[in-house]
Amino acid sequence: MRLTKILPALALIALPTMGISQEADVTPPNEEIGYILTSFMFLVTGFLVMWMAAGFTMLEAGLVRQKNTTMQLMKNVSLFSLAAIMYYLVGYNLMYPGDGWSIPGWLGAFGFAAMEPVGLAETETDLTYASVGSDFYFQLMFCATTASIVSGTLAERIKLWPFLIFTAALTGLIYPIQASWKWGGGFLDANLGFLDFAGSTVVHSVGGWAALAGALILGPRLGKYKDGRVNPMPGANLPLATLGTFILWMGWFGFNGGSQLYMDTAGNIADISRIFANTNTAAAGGALAALITTQLMYKKPDLTMVLNGALAGLVSITAEPLTPSLGAATLIGAVGGVLVVFAVPFLDKLKIDDVVGAIPVHLVCGIWGTFAVVLTNPDATLYGQIASILIVGAFVFVTSAAVWMILKATMGIRVSEEDEINGLDTAELGMEAYPEFAKG
Amino acid sequence: MRLTKILPALALIALPTMGISQEADVTPPNEEIGYILTSFMFLVTGFLVMWMAAGFTMLEAGLVRQKNTTMQLMKNVSLFSLAAIMYYLVGYNLMYPGDGWSIPGWLGAFGFAAMEPVGLAETETDLTYASVGSDFYFQLMFCATTASIVSGTLAERIKLWPFLIFTAALTGLIYPIQASWKWGGGFLDANLGFLDFAGSTVVHSVGGWAALAGALILGPRLGKYKDGRVNPMPGANLPLATLGTFILWMGWFGFNGGSQLYMDTAGNIADISRIFANTNTAAAGGALAALITTQLMYKKPDLTMVLNGALAGLVSITAEPLTPSLGAATLIGAVGGVLVVFAVPFLDKLKIDDVVGAIPVHLVCGIWGTFAVVLTNPDATLYGQIASILIVGAFVFVTSAAVWMILKATMGIRVSEEDEINGLDTAELGMEAYPEFAKG
Amino acid sequence: MRLTKILPALALIALPTMGISQEADVTPPNEEIGYILTSFMFLVTGFLVMWMAAGFTMLEAGLVRQKNTTMQLMKNVSLFSLAAIMYYLVGYNLMYPGDGWSIPGWLGAFGFAAMEPVGLAETETDLTYASVGSDFYFQLMFCATTASIVSGTLAERIKLWPFLIFTAALTGLIYPIQASWKWGGGFLDANLGFLDFAGSTVVHSVGGWAALAGALILGPRLGKYKDGRVNPMPGANLPLATLGTFILWMGWFGFNGGSQLYMDTAGNIADISRIFANTNTAAAGGALAALITTQLMYKKPDLTMVLNGALAGLVSITAEPLTPSLGAATLIGAVGGVLVVFAVPFLDKLKIDDVVGAIPVHLVCGIWGTFAVVLTNPDATLYGQIASILIVGAFVFVTSAAVWMILKATMGIRVSEEDEINGLDTAELGMEAYPEFAKG
Repeated sequence: MRLTKILPALALIALPTMGISQEADVTPPNEEIGYILTSFMFLVTGFLVMWMAAGFTMLEAGLVRQKNTTMQLMKNVSLFSLAAIMYYLVGYNLMYPGDGWSIPGWLGAFGFAAMEPVGLAETETDLTYASVGSDFYFQLMFCATTASIVSGTLAERIKLWPFLIFTAALTGLIYPIQASWKWGGGFLDANLGFLDFAGSTVVHSVGGWAALAGALILGPRLGKYKDGRVNPMPGANLPLATLGTFILWMGWFGFNGGSQLYMDTAGNIADISRIFANTNTAAAGGALAALITTQLMYKKPDLTMVLNGALAGLVSITAEPLTPSLGAATLIGAVGGVLVVFAVPFLDKLKIDDVVGAIPVHLVCGIWGTFAVVLTNPDATLYGQIASILIVGAFVFVTSAAVWMILKATMGIRVSEEDEINGLDTAELGMEAYPEFAKG
Repeated sequence: MRLTKILPALALIALPTMGISQEADVTPPNEEIGYILTSFMFLVTGFLVMWMAAGFTMLEAGLVRQKNTTMQLMKNVSLFSLAAIMYYLVGYNLMYPGDGWSIPGWLGAFGFAAMEPVGLAETETDLTYASVGSDFYFQLMFCATTASIVSGTLAERIKLWPFLIFTAALTGLIYPIQASWKWGGGFLDANLGFLDFAGSTVVHSVGGWAALAGALILGPRLGKYKDGRVNPMPGANLPLATLGTFILWMGWFGFNGGSQLYMDTAGNIADISRIFANTNTAAAGGALAALITTQLMYKKPDLTMVLNGALAGLVSITAEPLTPSLGAATLIGAVGGVLVVFAVPFLDKLKIDDVVGAIPVHLVCGIWGTFAVVLTNPDATLYGQIASILIVGAFVFVTSAAVWMILKATMGIRVSEEDEINGLDTAELGMEAYPEFAKG
Repeated sequence: MRLTKILPALALIALPTMGISQEADVTPPNEEIGYILTSFMFLVTGFLVMWMAAGFTMLEAGLVRQKNTTMQLMKNVSLFSLAAIMYYLVGYNLMYPGDGWSIPGWLGAFGFAAMEPVGLAETETDLTYASVGSDFYFQLMFCATTASIVSGTLAERIKLWPFLIFTAALTGLIYPIQASWKWGGGFLDANLGFLDFAGSTVVHSVGGWAALAGALILGPRLGKYKDGRVNPMPGANLPLATLGTFILWMGWFGFNGGSQLYMDTAGNIADISRIFANTNTAAAGGALAALITTQLMYKKPDLTMVLNGALAGLVSITAEPLTPSLGAATLIGAVGGVLVVFAVPFLDKLKIDDVVGAIPVHLVCGIWGTFAVVLTNPDATLYGQIASILIVGAFVFVTSAAVWMILKATMGIRVSEEDEINGLDTAELGMEAYPEFAKG
């Protein structure tokens, strides 16, 4: 850091405060270089989103009890793997059918994903966007994220295989179909003017709705709600949970930043930069809001709430990380952090047992973030946002509930009482996560 | 890796061994692409530096005792969040006032940070550097790093809220003001010719001075120094501490590499590449030096010293990661690794209780690294380096001590003896980090 | 994610399915920008490969028993550091001698690695590839990876210093010499037409052969094979092992993607994108295959096998991550996942004690992956692949065995029975990894 910088002054120059990055008169300086830059941006932001799978795994492994830890690890590694395969087999073309919709605007195309041939000749290729391989890689990670959200809520009592079958349905069909309605150019995008930049609704609330349907059908853990009291079941390893939160925080720069979709002009990179900074400050706002709220409410600040507060801030800014100023982004995140502190006990009041707080974070704040778009982006309409939240929510909740109920009726989704008490690790897997540490 | 490479030979071509990357006659091939590349470089290196916050958290959570682990996690998540907000509210403009100094060369400008408008039109913008958003994001992470250093030293006995208030003062005022003297173009830069590429002094020694002031005013942990003996209090989770070290090592490529500040020419990317390689080899040199030194001194190599040796190597190379050869960088790092092995018991002799060894690593090696600039960079003067170390040190130590003493006199900074013995987790937070593991 | 994308359709356009990325008539749009892009790509993919060192460390620290954890951490931090120094001192020029071979095609050049001078003047430089600094940084990480493979197999019984001396020989001599035969343009590359894109043979099987030689000479852990039974010795911390696997998975995008070696044209970035996607799907295929296979074979799925299955998929695709389609890559990875499930008990039948399963993953799947090149890449010949596997294997096994035997004869490589029973942490290091957790 060697040179005096005069750039802060630049921020004061009066420029139109709104604009569209891909206006017709903004041409990238060189098309092929723009193609390289955008594709590489997808790969970098994509590996950050892939890293979020590790974040969810560590967060959830830290927040379950010792006796269910191996199972939680198993579910998360398996769901990420399964999402990768399902999105390739079905999901990608369902979500981005291009001109090949099965039912225009409503149902995409069926078929395997295919990338460019090796050694692409640039003269024969459209270079205005990015490589299909980089786009596929990036979008796949969003699909996997949706599935990761579900595993935390249903931990400590769901069987492995029904969970994985649900994951296949979610990542192969449910997620991509509703995502096509917005990001594939379907009816929510074309007719309702729905705005959801990186997926407060399309990703996070979808994971939340699927988890909610599962939690209702699966029921709470044994002994969680007993004699009118909520029995706390604290997580076994808080450093892991904190590590998971930091990983998610880091990965979210890719999640929101990459959703700009182009890095071929100065306008686009400046927008991506705004998004990185806004994403960070929203997480910070959420964490501090949860810290202060729990201090005031309970006299003792609560680490798991602070972690969930950071995640709440991240989910809240995801629907619109670009248009807010740093101050507005901080506040949007802070509201998310407060919402989580109230939503967690509220769910308990309803006897909905969400082991890691995924429904408060991803569903409640996903809805809040989608609303909040209208506060800073004049292109958003309250009607379009609300209608889309309801349509997506109804579709995902109903289809998820149907899948859960079929699984429950056929193979069963819940382990036996004895297995639940002994822990899933010994019962279902025969392998303890920490075999040498004595139980306290 | 398919093609035979003849590049090593290239390294032998006689070229001037010193130069300045941004000479007037070195024009980037395309201004807008240069702007995109430099901005993207800031985002990538910036998320690596952000990741260092997780590294400090894991390192410190692994090196404290079990009963204080939740608190250490809480402090680190909170301080990172707080740094993000303070740097936005005050720090950024204080550090980079441009032409708007309150006291020219000494005190920057007051005001919130502001980024470019959305959808920047490149024709109206100066494209010679990078987006303000990317610059803000990158610089913010340096500010947060400074605060992370302090939390380790003062662990296991400081109260949460006074610590956070100090963090607000450090990240909003103390850090940015002194950083403006060098990186904002203030008097150390303009008048003393001070050279500190990525902040051995501006970041690391600053964290170290603030920690030292705190440690002196806070006092050692109960029972640490008793009957003339130093009572070892080993960390509860060495895999976590090792993970934290690897995270820091990885993040440091961003810390030093991004400080090149430009990636728009072949000269700049070649320099960034040198910096990555030198940063890595200095860490390796520090780790191996600590390994060998502890083997020779104690007959048994000491893992925590090897971890701190790696970090010592990283701090040592931070003031000048560009001009040394690979061999010189290795040696600079190795000296840091040896220094740490001697500085840790020396601090104990002075009864200064530094839980994680942050003062040896960041202050002692920060000073060493700042000196070492004169060994490989002919532009550095011994006078300029020493004077700057002293000026920055005096400013940070005195202001930090003042804040600590005010906090001590008003709200108190230390938990009660009973709480300290029982552990901060139960006493202050009511939440254990590993509730199910029996204590040995 | 705002715009409707029509790119999937693009994937269907008929283009030649094979080609060579660096054909003479494919010129990058701008040479200096190409140089910047390729160099930056090496730095980004390089830090991902560096991160794999943390992945191996966490994987191995999670899979050893508690009493040997500190030692496993120590070995991994030290070996990475040592690899960095040895590759600088000897390895890099041995591996990439350019025109300066000591024995043409067989033995490279001796001398320290040297990077470009600071402030490179682009007019005097060849800008057709990448900066030497970025290339050195990237290649160094491959060398370190090879050494990381060995430490897992030999855990829980080998002494620290002989292990490190072997590491010096491996990273300074054995690895670079055989790597020069392929990647330095030596005889395997020039005369046998051997294809190994990112190193299923050159890196992974080499680590595996060195580990196998060590395991045979070192012998199994006490009590591992007793009375004709295999005594399971489960790892102490499965969340750590899972974290390590995710880290390796993430780092592998850099490992395989960066091995494209160029990012200066649309064709190259499209190829890198393919590689990222194929690498991910191969890991997913390996994990799911191991999940299903262990469910069918043992009625209970096995987490450590699923983790090793993911790694097996990654190793399997490493020799050719570019030419397979997504479906073929999935299958290549899945075969690797199945192989591991059978190879682990097979090794036990031979009484070869491999603590973490590194030989099944890196050697068995390294060989499988090298064979599999002929399935999707018409440029590969079965003869060239098999001959190269045998030549590299013989060289590495024999030289490694020689080094191990010299070490055994001189300083001894194995700790005493008493030390092995008490654990290496107390005996050799005097430092426990989890000193406060009671043993169960």
